[in-house]
Amino acid sequence: MPPKPAENPNVKVGLEGVIAATSQICAIDGEKGELVYAGYNIHDLAENSTFEEVLFLLWHLRLPTKRELEKLVHDLEENSEIPHEIMSFLEKIAPRLSAMGMLRTFVSMLAHFDPEAGERSPAANENKALRIVAKIPTLIGAFDRFRKGDRLVVPPKGLNLATRFLHQLFGKEPLPEASKAMDVALVLHAEHSFNASTFAARVAAGTLTDIYSATTAAIATLKGPLHGGANEEVIKMLRQIGSVDRVRGFIEEELAEKRRIFGFGHRVYKTMDPRATHLMKMSEALGKAHGETKWFEMSIAIQKVMKELKGLDPNVDFYSASLYQTMGIPVDLFTSIFGMSRSSGWTAHILEQYRNNRLIRPLAEYTGPRGLKYVPIDQRK
Amino acid sequence: MPPKPAENPNVKVGLEGVIAATSQICAIDGEKGELVYAGYNIHDLAENSTFEEVLFLLWHLRLPTKRELEKLVHDLEENSEIPHEIMSFLEKIAPRLSAMGMLRTFVSMLAHFDPEAGERSPAANENKALRIVAKIPTLIGAFDRFRKGDRLVVPPKGLNLATRFLHQLFGKEPLPEASKAMDVALVLHAEHSFNASTFAARVAAGTLTDIYSATTAAIATLKGPLHGGANEEVIKMLRQIGSVDRVRGFIEEELAEKRRIFGFGHRVYKTMDPRATHLMKMSEALGKAHGETKWFEMSIAIQKVMKELKGLDPNVDFYSASLYQTMGIPVDLFTSIFGMSRSSGWTAHILEQYRNNRLIRPLAEYTGPRGLKYVPIDQRK
Repeated sequence: MPPKPAENPNVKVGLEGVIAATSQICAIDGEKGELVYAGYNIHDLAENSTFEEVLFLLWHLRLPTKRELEKLVHDLEENSEIPHEIMSFLEKIAPRLSAMGMLRTFVSMLAHFDPEAGERSPAANENKALRIVAKIPTLIGAFDRFRKGDRLVVPPKGLNLATRFLHQLFGKEPLPEASKAMDVALVLHAEHSFNASTFAARVAAGTLTDIYSATTAAIATLKGPLHGGANEEVIKMLRQIGSVDRVRGFIEEELAEKRRIFGFGHRVYKTMDPRATHLMKMSEALGKAHGETKWFEMSIAIQKVMKELKGLDPNVDFYSASLYQTMGIPVDLFTSIFGMSRSSGWTAHILEQYRNNRLIRPLAEYTGPRGLKYVPIDQRK
Repeated sequence: MPPKPAENPNVKVGLEGVIAATSQICAIDGEKGELVYAGYNIHDLAENSTFEEVLFLLWHLRLPTKRELEKLVHDLEENSEIPHEIMSFLEKIAPRLSAMGMLRTFVSMLAHFDPEAGERSPAANENKALRIVAKIPTLIGAFDRFRKGDRLVVPPKGLNLATRFLHQLFGKEPLPEASKAMDVALVLHAEHSFNASTFAARVAAGTLTDIYSATTAAIATLKGPLHGGANEEVIKMLRQIGSVDRVRGFIEEELAEKRRIFGFGHRVYKTMDPRATHLMKMSEALGKAHGETKWFEMSIAIQKVMKELKGLDPNVDFYSASLYQTMGIPVDLFTSIFGMSRSSGWTAHILEQYRNNRLIRPLAEYTGPRGLKYVPIDQRK
């Protein structure tokens, strides 16, 4: 039995339009298509910044000095290792796992191995946030290698997080264009205010649960196909289409069948998603570097047809799909890479929630029967 | 930097008073002190029903027939086993784990071993809900034995969930009074509308994430000391007080120091928490059966002093503390037992969210600076 529709206009289904808290981390103007991290426009950050710099910005609400940035890059590298006990268990069960299920289970497990497990001071929480962000790329890289029966590769020292991740994943030095594209993709996916996974992290953190728990809640939420799964769906569509000349026919048929075209439209943005432009450029540049522009060209064609037929613009998921595909990343890792980036925003929000906490507990409107009389089981029909 | 306080009156901090959805599962009237599961008053259920019957009620929104109930009891038993690979890993790392961290990690891990992993039909989701509820008691019992270096005990067939849990935990047949008290405690903790953990489960489920993920998000949230941890704090207080004659002095001193007395007052109930009465009776009966009434007597004395000095009534956490203590359950398992019961309500809400889904995505009010200009790192101070 689905619940009856709300008769009470005060029921805010999906909390749409409800302002649940104040935050200094991120501003979105859906009408203007503007995305701002702690005061800085996403276009500035995508063109000039790095993931590590954005990470510092989200945590500290200001850009780092050169020295602070160098320390952060170093600390992320130092903390990227996974304890041996966890690694050997991951190796054993990797073939059973989905990428997001792996991330949920193993980030949860890392909590028990944190050197400050049980510590709740702001400093300990910041250290834990750093360890979480540092270890997620290693988990994803190791998982993909283990499930294929490959051995771990230890990347050389001195790499940034994006490059280290690609090195761990592919077992060799990435092209500079790939490394740069991954870094920009991480910048663009880092933060997006109260999306469902971040909001879940804040609901969890509102009980003063630990930061690994709140991050696990976020991963569990991002795993849902309505949230993190869209770019995987985009790539399935691109594969199904196969070539540029088949784009129009495919989209027309899908729309006629009232099927959803993933990667278009956004609950918040009424214009083009400001992140999509940068990913589009990256996708094109990387296609050329790899000598494989097919995915990009199909994407451009789909964008044009969707604008013409539905008036819809692509969102962040649309071009990240062809970008990751061109890099050779397995499709079923896409959402976990989204999580790898968004772990920066999640931890920033969890730390902000701790600084100014209030338990998050809304109400439900009960629409079931009342006053039922308990009937002993022998007298039930 | 904590965020500035909201100047906008539309910011619903903590979502207090906001109705986030309709639901047919639970009604709470805080003014009257009324708690209703799917139409049935909690007093009726506590006096006449069993945990298995309540589980059926929460999932199906009606009481079971005799045959349906027998099938459910049987299915819960059949599904209570944990795969060997998981058990041997749990044995290995148990000494490192907290009970709630264990539950979060291992429920997450069970997802990968579910025979219907990847299936998303309503029937598959109901089967998974059953497996989750069936396996949590086994996980908690095994965890406690493993961390003490004890071996697993396989309980005899034909037990209900409460009795099986106590058997697994203590490695022997529980007293009938203990078994009954545990069953009533499970009934009373099963469901409580949109508390933080259940709401987190619904936020997760709103992305159509799988039921293990949404349950993991709930466990991660229950772990917070502002939510699930209160009965552990109560027992720490009882131990600190030590005897009935020291109660008044202790409470007066704590209140003078403006320290919080756990187990009193509730954000929703303005009267006595209707669940507390039943736990109080159980706690008294069990104390007599065990020949150890000290915890109960101290609790009664604290209740009296708190009513006199602060006008506050005990909540569900207050008497569950002395009840579990009298049973000999380790204090650090209390919250996980709350979770063992609440897994019924969580899964009921997740299934309800799936039946009538809407992504849950509120807004944040941005209170940080705007229009900052990106300064190259070499020019930063």
